[in-house]
Amino acid sequence: MLIIFEVAAIIAFAVSGLIESVRKRMDIVGIFTVAFVTAFGGGTLRDLLLDRRPFFWVQHQEYVWLVLALALIGPLLLRVLQHRLVDRTMTVTDALGLGLFTVSGASFAMAAEMPIIVVAMMGVITGVFGGVLRDVLCNEIPLVFHDHRPYALCAAFGSAVFIGLHALALEPWIVLTGGAATATGLRLLALALDWRIPPWPKDSGLL
Amino acid sequence: MLIIFEVAAIIAFAVSGLIESVRKRMDIVGIFTVAFVTAFGGGTLRDLLLDRRPFFWVQHQEYVWLVLALALIGPLLLRVLQHRLVDRTMTVTDALGLGLFTVSGASFAMAAEMPIIVVAMMGVITGVFGGVLRDVLCNEIPLVFHDHRPYALCAAFGSAVFIGLHALALEPWIVLTGGAATATGLRLLALALDWRIPPWPKDSGLL
Amino acid sequence: MLIIFEVAAIIAFAVSGLIESVRKRMDIVGIFTVAFVTAFGGGTLRDLLLDRRPFFWVQHQEYVWLVLALALIGPLLLRVLQHRLVDRTMTVTDALGLGLFTVSGASFAMAAEMPIIVVAMMGVITGVFGGVLRDVLCNEIPLVFHDHRPYALCAAFGSAVFIGLHALALEPWIVLTGGAATATGLRLLALALDWRIPPWPKDSGLL
Repeated sequence: MLIIFEVAAIIAFAVSGLIESVRKRMDIVGIFTVAFVTAFGGGTLRDLLLDRRPFFWVQHQEYVWLVLALALIGPLLLRVLQHRLVDRTMTVTDALGLGLFTVSGASFAMAAEMPIIVVAMMGVITGVFGGVLRDVLCNEIPLVFHDHRPYALCAAFGSAVFIGLHALALEPWIVLTGGAATATGLRLLALALDWRIPPWPKDSGLL
Repeated sequence: MLIIFEVAAIIAFAVSGLIESVRKRMDIVGIFTVAFVTAFGGGTLRDLLLDRRPFFWVQHQEYVWLVLALALIGPLLLRVLQHRLVDRTMTVTDALGLGLFTVSGASFAMAAEMPIIVVAMMGVITGVFGGVLRDVLCNEIPLVFHDHRPYALCAAFGSAVFIGLHALALEPWIVLTGGAATATGLRLLALALDWRIPPWPKDSGLL
Repeated sequence: MLIIFEVAAIIAFAVSGLIESVRKRMDIVGIFTVAFVTAFGGGTLRDLLLDRRPFFWVQHQEYVWLVLALALIGPLLLRVLQHRLVDRTMTVTDALGLGLFTVSGASFAMAAEMPIIVVAMMGVITGVFGGVLRDVLCNEIPLVFHDHRPYALCAAFGSAVFIGLHALALEPWIVLTGGAATATGLRLLALALDWRIPPWPKDSGLL
């Protein structure tokens, strides 16, 4: 069950890299690299910062093959993705991925006995930095920094719930599910209700 | 005393990230991330390269809270910063930060028994790469690479003085102060006297 | 013999960083940094991912001095490089560098008992990511992702040959030479015959 979600999340993240790199008219090398970095960048940065080895994608090399296959069948895939139904599925799996990656980052940081602010940051970094690296490689300001839609904030709330439930010494599966469900649920709610992060006041003198 | 300087340096670096991210119209997520990366990016890269754990900001989690608070009170802060007096204070604390971060990088590299060219590089990387990563995330060519004002060069001279004093087997506090004062002093001098790094000759055929 | 190739490869990679940074009108700090990152970025990323220390350029600090010297004599060097003969030499040494760096990445990953897909990736990353980081620092979409000329693909084929020869339990020098010669040869062939990577079909709906 968890593995199905995880695979769905990796596909959702990889496809977002696929779309961005095709938009930039990259060749197969760029498409694979950007898809790979989007899917595994957050987890790899987490593992670098926490000094964990082997990496996630070294342990599960089938995921690397999966992303390689996605990059190769990309044109076909994106034609299918035109359909609105698939679009909606993508949104949901992306939100699921955000939740899963967030709690994976938070729980590894917790296991490494990091202070809670670092646990929360690792949750957000794991959930969000794949997309940040995707945008850096595509020479864009990272979308998550300026689209004024809650994404990293959902991951932050998910991490906070994870930390809270962990402090109550609840069973691991409740802690993990609670954190992931919070991040995923908030993200879906934010999209459904079109929530926005308020911008800075105009008169701050710098704009 | 050292802690006051260190906090001032982190604030100075974080505020430079704050200003840049607000200019790019980022939301609170981008503002916090860019401020954080500017303040801690150099030290984190140093620790990754030297394989030191835990990171600086994991040991001193109060600094993370500080940057988070800065990002939240940003609008207010930047209005205050309009005042010229504050502007000047910022310049001085930024130069102080450059000096402090430079000797911290150089001394950790020295303790890890790196060759002296690597010690010098670690000094410069620690002082400068926070700003480089800030500009990469903001989708700009790093300012320090092309503004033709001495900044990294001041860090390089500070590292050289650090290495020289260390070779003379002087007491640690003299070595550290000498290196930091050189970097900070040169930077302030460079700004006061408007020094420029000479550009390339125009006829080099590539321009 | 190998050392001559290695030095030639580092020079070729550093010079490509030199040219790009001069084009962007960077000062000496930017020129040195970009040249350094281009020459050592791929190997450093490989070592970070495989958790190898000390880094390549820490063990061979003379290479760092070499790049520093290159950055200082840059203007003179680039005037010399106008000559077509030198241009051709550069192309060949760059292809040699690609081959050498590819097998170095693949063989370190093999020694660390990585799965073969990861071995192949480490080969490509080591050969290619110096150039990727160069372009990120110069605020460009990495050339290797979108110029539709085989470069990373040559490294991938070289890695595959390396893996195949290794699986046959041939002697190390045959495995290394076979892999490097494949990557280098394919690259030179691709340039000589003007091979292109086919673009995506136009009607994929995203362009």
